[in-house]
Amino acid sequence: MTAPAPAPATPLLDAIAAPADVKALPEDALPRLAEEIRARMVAVVSKTGGHLAPSLGVVELTLALCRVFDFPADKLVWDVGHQAYAWKMLTGRNARMDTLRRFGGVRGFPFPEESPYDAAVGGHAGVALATALGLASARDRRGGQGHVIAVVGDASLTNGISLEALNAVRHTTERLILVVNDNGMSISRNVGALARLFARQLAGLRYNRIRAAAEAAGHRLRLSRLRAFYRGLKTLVKGALLRHRAAIFEDLGLRYIGPIDGHDIPALCDALRAAAGGRVPVALHIATVKGKGYPPAERNPAKWHGVGPWAAEPHAPGPKAALTWSEAFGRALRERALRDPAIEAVTAAMRTGTGLDAFFRDLPARAHDVGICEGYAVAFAAGLAAAGLRPAVALYSTFAQRAVDNLMHDVCLPNLPVLLCLDRAGVVGPDGPTHHGLYDLAMLRALPNLEIHAPATRAGLEAALDAALARTGPTVVRYPRGYAPEGPAPRLEAPEGAPLVLALGPTAFWAEPVAKALGLGLETVERVKPLPDFVRGLGARPLITLEDAAAAGGFGAAVAEVHRGPLLILGWPDRFVPQGSEAELRAACGLDANGLRVRIAAFLGALPGGRHG
Amino acid sequence: MTAPAPAPATPLLDAIAAPADVKALPEDALPRLAEEIRARMVAVVSKTGGHLAPSLGVVELTLALCRVFDFPADKLVWDVGHQAYAWKMLTGRNARMDTLRRFGGVRGFPFPEESPYDAAVGGHAGVALATALGLASARDRRGGQGHVIAVVGDASLTNGISLEALNAVRHTTERLILVVNDNGMSISRNVGALARLFARQLAGLRYNRIRAAAEAAGHRLRLSRLRAFYRGLKTLVKGALLRHRAAIFEDLGLRYIGPIDGHDIPALCDALRAAAGGRVPVALHIATVKGKGYPPAERNPAKWHGVGPWAAEPHAPGPKAALTWSEAFGRALRERALRDPAIEAVTAAMRTGTGLDAFFRDLPARAHDVGICEGYAVAFAAGLAAAGLRPAVALYSTFAQRAVDNLMHDVCLPNLPVLLCLDRAGVVGPDGPTHHGLYDLAMLRALPNLEIHAPATRAGLEAALDAALARTGPTVVRYPRGYAPEGPAPRLEAPEGAPLVLALGPTAFWAEPVAKALGLGLETVERVKPLPDFVRGLGARPLITLEDAAAAGGFGAAVAEVHRGPLLILGWPDRFVPQGSEAELRAACGLDANGLRVRIAAFLGALPGGRHG
Repeated sequence: MTAPAPAPATPLLDAIAAPADVKALPEDALPRLAEEIRARMVAVVSKTGGHLAPSLGVVELTLALCRVFDFPADKLVWDVGHQAYAWKMLTGRNARMDTLRRFGGVRGFPFPEESPYDAAVGGHAGVALATALGLASARDRRGGQGHVIAVVGDASLTNGISLEALNAVRHTTERLILVVNDNGMSISRNVGALARLFARQLAGLRYNRIRAAAEAAGHRLRLSRLRAFYRGLKTLVKGALLRHRAAIFEDLGLRYIGPIDGHDIPALCDALRAAAGGRVPVALHIATVKGKGYPPAERNPAKWHGVGPWAAEPHAPGPKAALTWSEAFGRALRERALRDPAIEAVTAAMRTGTGLDAFFRDLPARAHDVGICEGYAVAFAAGLAAAGLRPAVALYSTFAQRAVDNLMHDVCLPNLPVLLCLDRAGVVGPDGPTHHGLYDLAMLRALPNLEIHAPATRAGLEAALDAALARTGPTVVRYPRGYAPEGPAPRLEAPEGAPLVLALGPTAFWAEPVAKALGLGLETVERVKPLPDFVRGLGARPLITLEDAAAAGGFGAAVAEVHRGPLLILGWPDRFVPQGSEAELRAACGLDANGLRVRIAAFLGALPGGRHG
Repeated sequence: MTAPAPAPATPLLDAIAAPADVKALPEDALPRLAEEIRARMVAVVSKTGGHLAPSLGVVELTLALCRVFDFPADKLVWDVGHQAYAWKMLTGRNARMDTLRRFGGVRGFPFPEESPYDAAVGGHAGVALATALGLASARDRRGGQGHVIAVVGDASLTNGISLEALNAVRHTTERLILVVNDNGMSISRNVGALARLFARQLAGLRYNRIRAAAEAAGHRLRLSRLRAFYRGLKTLVKGALLRHRAAIFEDLGLRYIGPIDGHDIPALCDALRAAAGGRVPVALHIATVKGKGYPPAERNPAKWHGVGPWAAEPHAPGPKAALTWSEAFGRALRERALRDPAIEAVTAAMRTGTGLDAFFRDLPARAHDVGICEGYAVAFAAGLAAAGLRPAVALYSTFAQRAVDNLMHDVCLPNLPVLLCLDRAGVVGPDGPTHHGLYDLAMLRALPNLEIHAPATRAGLEAALDAALARTGPTVVRYPRGYAPEGPAPRLEAPEGAPLVLALGPTAFWAEPVAKALGLGLETVERVKPLPDFVRGLGARPLITLEDAAAAGGFGAAVAEVHRGPLLILGWPDRFVPQGSEAELRAACGLDANGLRVRIAAFLGALPGGRHG
C-alpha cells in the first residue's frame, strides 16, 4: 500500500503513564503530543493492521478528555472502540501497543478486563450511550459526583439502540455528556435523514455560537479551522435553520453545544468544561476528519478505516487469483441479479466488507445500505420480499445477532424468501471476541421455515445462493473471513461402520489431513438445516463433527439430536475466543491439526473395542 | 370484572364483506357502523379475551382507512396488530370473530397467511414502518401507484427499529404514510423524551393548523373534540413551540400533518386524502383514546389493554392462593431488593406483565421502565452492573430476542452480573406464535459466561434468583405463563439403568403421570447451563428429555451433546406453534399426556432388547 512508517521518536508520549500526566503537560506541548501519538499509531498499525482512520480522527478529543476529566473515577465509554488507540496509549498501554490485535496482545477495542480505564466493551456500534446511562443512573443513586461521557460517532447515533438511549436520557439522569463525533461518514458513507441533519448543521458553521452553558461560562471557542473541512460544501444554510436542527437534541432533553472543531484542543477543553459544569445532559457535537494527520488516510478514509499491516508481510496470503468469500458472494449475487430483476441487495454500513461494491455500482436502484441498523435491514427486506422481490441481506455474523428477532418475527413466521448472507461467520482473527461469528448457528437453527447453508467452496457458495433463490421461504448462508477455496470439497472414503468425520463448510479443509492420517472417512457437510439426509442414516457409526462455530447448539448439536452412535463434537469452546491469527486461535482451542488429532484419537480410543477401523 | 356483554345487533357490520363495502356506505352511516363494531368487539372479547382497549381506540381510523384507500391493492401494516380487530371485522373475518385467539380461529394479530388484507405479521412492536418501507421501495421500483400505510402507536415509535426506519424514510421513498396513533400510553404509561414531545404537541392543540399539503388541498379538519381529551392537561404551550416540535418529523423528511382527532371520521378521511395526495412521505399524527367507547376501558385502559374473557368461565384457573410466575418473581425480587440495596429492576413497557408493579411502587428510584426498547434495557443494565449494581431485567422471552446481541456483547463478554428474567418462556396460549417463548434456550445457550435456570416451582424460582444474585457473572432465569407450582418438584426413583425422564422446569408436572404409568424414573432439571453434574454421569442409560421450548438447540440438545446412550428429545416441533390453550397446543404437538405416552413408548420399544425395565 505505502512505505512502512519509520519507528518514530515519541519522547512526550513515552513519559505518559496515565491521563493525569496529560493534565500535567503545558498546554503548548499538546500539539506535539498529538503528533507523536499519530506517528506512533501509524507505525503500530503499519505492522499490526487495525482501525487507523477512526483513531487518527480523535487524537485531540482524547487529549482534551484527559485534560478535563479524572479517569478512571470519571467514566468514558467509546462507541465502537476502534477509535480508542490514542486512549489506550494514554492509559498505560503505550509500551504494549506493538502487540495490538495480536494473540495475547492489546485488544483492538476497549475491554474492562484489559484496563480499569475502559468502562465498557466497545466492539458493536450503538450501545455506548445506553451503557453510559446505566453508569450515570448508578452514580446518581449513590449521590456520586463523577462524570460519565459517551463518545458516539454520527453513524452509530442512528443505530436503533443509540436512538432508544437518546430518548431515555432526559428521564434517566441530569448529568451525562454525549460527545457526537461527527466525521460525516460511517465506515463508508453515512446514510439517512439524521446524517443530512448533521451535514447541514456543519454547513452552517459561520452562524455557530456556543449555546447557553458555554456562553455563561465565558468560554472562547475556536472554530476558524472548521470551515476548511467543508470547503467542498457549496450550500451554507442560515443560522435560524442551524438552531432549528440543533433543536432535535434539545427536544430530547439534551443541551446542544456545537459544532466544535474536533482538532482544536483548547476549544474542545472549553466545551467539555462547559458540558461538565451544568446539571443537564449535554450533546457536544464535534467535527473531526477521519484519518486526520495521515495524508493517505485523509484522502481515502474508507480504505483506511480498517487496514491490514502494510509494513510486514501479510499473513495467510490467498491462493493466486482466488477470491475472498465476500468477493465471491458479491460477484455471484451480482451475476444472478443481472439475470433476475427481483434480486435486491441490502447491507448495514458494510457494502465493501460484504463484497457488494460492484452490486451497488452497477445496480444502485436495487442496492440498499441502511446504515448501522441490522434489525431494520431485515425488517425492511421482509417488506421487499412480501412485495415479491428477492432481497439478499448481507451482514457480518456477529452483527446479525441484532436481527435475530426480525428474522424470526418478520421473515420466518410469514415464511418470506429473504436470503440472509452471514459474512465473517467463524473466527475473524485480530478483531477478536466482539467480532467472531460463532453463535449464529445456535441462535438461528431453532427457527422454523429456515434453511441454513454453510458452503465449503466457492462452488458451494454459488449452489447455496441458487438453492436459496429457488426457495419460497427464508435461507441463511454463512461463510467465514478469508479466501474461498476454488476446488472441490474434500471427501475421504472409509469402510462402512468406520468412524466418520462430518466437517461443516470450509472446516473440511481443516479436517482433511487429520482424517487422512487417522484413516477416517470424511464428508463435507454444507447444510445445517435441514441436515443432509445421509446424516440421519448413519446408524450407530462413530461420528466426529467439526465446525467453525461454538460447539454448543450448532452443527454438532444438530447431529447429536438425531444420531444414535458415539459422537465427538468439535467446535469453539464455551468461553470467549480471544484475538489472534486463525492459526493461533485454532491452536489455542485444540482445533489445529495437532489438537484435532489428539482429541479425535482420544475419542477413538474410548470407543468400545474394535470400533475404530 | 363486568357483566357479560349481550350479543349485539349489528346489521350494518353484518353487510360488510370487504373494505369496498365501507366505501359504499353513506357518510352519515359511519358513526352507527363504528358503534356496531365496538359492540361486537366487546361481545367477542368478553368471551375470548383479547386486546380490547387498543382495538377500541382505532375504530374510526380503520373506517377512514377503508373509505380512502383501496385494499388490498394498497398496503396497510399495523404495528403491534392487536389494534386490528376492527380491521379484521371489515376484511371478511367478522363472521369468524367469535373464534378470536382460539385454537384454529382468527388470530389476535395480522397474518398474511390468514388474509390477503394483512400485509405483514404484526405481533412485535416497532417493525411496521420498516416493513412498510420495504413494500414502498418495491412498489417504487416497479413504478406502482399503490399506497403504503403504516399505523404505529406512539410507544412503538420510540422502539429502536421504528427510529431506524424513521431515519431511513427520506432516502427510501417519496410516498409513504405513517399514521402515528397517539394515545399517550403504551401498555401502561409511555416513557421518554419523544413521549413528552407528543404530549406537548397535543397540549398545544389550540394552535394547531394543518400544514402545507392539507391547506393546499383545502381540506377542512375538525378538531373541536380533541380538547376534551386533554382536559386534564394544565399547560398549553405556545404555537411556535408546537410547530417547533412538529419539526422533528420534518427534520426526518416527512411532512407533518396533525394532530387530528382520531375519532372524527370526516377529519381523518380529509387528512388521509391530503396525505395520499403528495409526493412526499407524511407523518399523520392522530390522537385517540385507548378503550374509546367502552366506559370501563376508557377509565382504565391499562387494565383493559389485554384481558381474559369475562363472560365465560376462565380456563385453567389457578390453585387457591397460588401466584402466577410473574407474581412470584415480582414478589421474590422485591423482597430481595428490600434487603439488598444493589438490586434494581428494569423492564421494557411490561411492568405489570412481568409482576413488577409492587417493586415500582415501593422502590421507584431503583425501578426502570425503558419503554419498548429491549436492546436498550439490557445495554442499560450492563451499565448499572458495571457500576456495581445488580440489575434484574424482566422481559418476555419472545421480546428478549431483540436483546440477544446486547446480552452477548454488553453483558456476557465483560461477564457482568446482569440477571435476565424471561417471563412467558414456553407456549403462551391465545397470543400465538408471535408471543410463544420457544427459542430462548437455543439462542442463549451458546453464550459463554452465562448460566441458564429453568425452575419448576416457586421455591425453585427463588433458589434460581438467589443463585443468580450470588454470581459475579450473568444469569438467565426462564419461567412460563401461568401459575407457579407451590409444592416440591416431582421425582420418581427407578432402578439404575432404567430409562429416565429428564424434565426441564415445570414440564416435570407434564411428565410425572406419564413416567409413573410407564414405570420410568423422573428427574426435574432446573438448570440448562451448565447442566447439573449428574446428567453427565448417566452413562449409556436411555434418556427422555422434555422441555417447554423448541426441541432444536435447547435442553434436549444440551443433553444430546454430552450423553452417550439412547435419547429421545421432546419439545415443541420445528414449525411455528399456533394459538390455542396450552392443553390444545400440547395435544396438537404430541406433548399432552397421551402424546408423551405414545412417543415415549415407541422410543422404549425401539431400544435394544431389555433396556426398558
